[in-house]
Amino acid sequence: MRIVLDAMGTDRAPEPEVMGALQALRDFEPDIELVLVGDEPLIRAELARHGEVPERLRVHHAPDRVTVSDAPASVIRRSPNSSMVVGLRLHEEGAADAFVSAGSTGAIMSTSLFTLQRLPGVARPPVAAVLPTLGAGTPCLLLDSGANVDCKPHHLVQFAQLGSIYARDTMGRETPRVALLNIGREPGKGDELTAETYGLLAEESGIHFVGNVEGRDIIQGVCDVVVCDGFVGNVLLKFYESVSAFILGLLRQELDPRKESKKLEELFRVLDYAEYGGAPLLGVGGVSIICHGDSPPKAIRNALAMAARAVRSDMVTHSARDMLLRVEAEEAS
Amino acid sequence: MRIVLDAMGTDRAPEPEVMGALQALRDFEPDIELVLVGDEPLIRAELARHGEVPERLRVHHAPDRVTVSDAPASVIRRSPNSSMVVGLRLHEEGAADAFVSAGSTGAIMSTSLFTLQRLPGVARPPVAAVLPTLGAGTPCLLLDSGANVDCKPHHLVQFAQLGSIYARDTMGRETPRVALLNIGREPGKGDELTAETYGLLAEESGIHFVGNVEGRDIIQGVCDVVVCDGFVGNVLLKFYESVSAFILGLLRQELDPRKESKKLEELFRVLDYAEYGGAPLLGVGGVSIICHGDSPPKAIRNALAMAARAVRSDMVTHSARDMLLRVEAEEAS
Repeated sequence: MRIVLDAMGTDRAPEPEVMGALQALRDFEPDIELVLVGDEPLIRAELARHGEVPERLRVHHAPDRVTVSDAPASVIRRSPNSSMVVGLRLHEEGAADAFVSAGSTGAIMSTSLFTLQRLPGVARPPVAAVLPTLGAGTPCLLLDSGANVDCKPHHLVQFAQLGSIYARDTMGRETPRVALLNIGREPGKGDELTAETYGLLAEESGIHFVGNVEGRDIIQGVCDVVVCDGFVGNVLLKFYESVSAFILGLLRQELDPRKESKKLEELFRVLDYAEYGGAPLLGVGGVSIICHGDSPPKAIRNALAMAARAVRSDMVTHSARDMLLRVEAEEAS
Repeated sequence: MRIVLDAMGTDRAPEPEVMGALQALRDFEPDIELVLVGDEPLIRAELARHGEVPERLRVHHAPDRVTVSDAPASVIRRSPNSSMVVGLRLHEEGAADAFVSAGSTGAIMSTSLFTLQRLPGVARPPVAAVLPTLGAGTPCLLLDSGANVDCKPHHLVQFAQLGSIYARDTMGRETPRVALLNIGREPGKGDELTAETYGLLAEESGIHFVGNVEGRDIIQGVCDVVVCDGFVGNVLLKFYESVSAFILGLLRQELDPRKESKKLEELFRVLDYAEYGGAPLLGVGGVSIICHGDSPPKAIRNALAMAARAVRSDMVTHSARDMLLRVEAEEAS
């Protein structure tokens, strides 16, 4: 298996990418190879700081870099030699099995859609954010987390289907519990979108729908997948990240987690998004994982692990098959 | 000034209500009187545990109690002798200037609308939640926080107007900064609702519109008032409350804030909703403050303080005047 890592994505690139990649190669199975795409001299210089370059790590030169000021939809045309476009092309052409980047979220989504294409039957590919939960510590997938606004009920049903497959294939949930994010638990609660979506999800045979959940239920771990419009998901995710970053930053200054209790360890885990690495774009013909611009090496390493699990489990094939079956069923009915 | 406090609202009523009321009378100006409405024997028994009953505290008997299982819209008709209905009637009839309750949120909203009535020109009275922010520590009003879903752009404009008056009158902001909650900062970003609302807010002369803010900006204190559809606001608020309750609970177990640093004190302040007390229902002909069902005495005391500031500033008169001027301007144009 070969995973492409955009080496120019983070704010401090390529250092976190190089360090995350080296960590991944130490931890992962020996059949996993990594390709760092980006400014080769810069990458080589960073690699040189960390000793011998492992055999399973290759560097693929791409001179340009996508910035947040580039219009996402134009990146594919205007920056053909950027690490992002070159990396996604390698995946599209089959030279790699997955793509991971901490570059501009909008640009990764847009360029992934252009290169990897939507799977047949998928109306709007969602981005699935991974939210920590308490207790057992199994995270919850939140989708859509920002790729699609003004969603219709059938879009949310597709998010549920794609999220369910991803949670089963890569997060070890045999029958993922799928919930609808709402402002009350009773059926029929909510706005027009959720009231109608509830009925569709309840009738959907391919998923295990557990009903509505409220904002307060998410961190309690009552479900494995929670679906919502990308507007709500994006506001929620960014709000949570800012709150957790503030708290984590402050606690790290004030406390030494190694000297503190098990409970504080759990707190650090819940607040630290780096535990989960990245957010997969689902419903496209490949594996594309989107990381934060300020990802530390640990987050890059964990995003590479997500990508490896997605490839290993054949998640994309399962998604494609499921979506195609639904298209055929609809055409037949 | 006389404030009615529903003494049967919290999960552990009437203890937190009685303790919060006694604290308020110790702290507040001597012209403020409180009326505790509810089961008189229960209230008297609780009062007896705290020494002599202050002169400025009265008890008004109401034998029944609204529970979360009561359908909100039926409370006014089915529970006329409940502490909530009796208390709001006292305010409606002018025997009191404000109403505070920690009972069922839906029931308080519904019964407040029925008794106090919408102000002329107000389409959908919003509930304004008070969110803590970092730094200077001036909180941010989030509205609507759950009373109205499927809002139209002109509803959000009214939320902005009502929130701006409330922030000016009761939170000491001469020119409150009003922002639109969105998924990007640039004008035109977002879903249909926010894209159209942006244009209306930008043209609105009576408010100081500072543009879009994202979920991550809220706790940074970049604005005093942030408007959104009640669906988004409710999800965000409940999510935040669950995260902050978890973190606060854990830190309180593990750390002693008195022995810790100034920074940890700020953390405790940011996470503790009891600092702010309650959420006002705006755009109605009176002052109605909604508290959490699990409010401690401190939250009740602080909600009474919010009510007192709203009465003292004549916030309702200002809101009514502003809304009426707008109705007249629209009719003239």
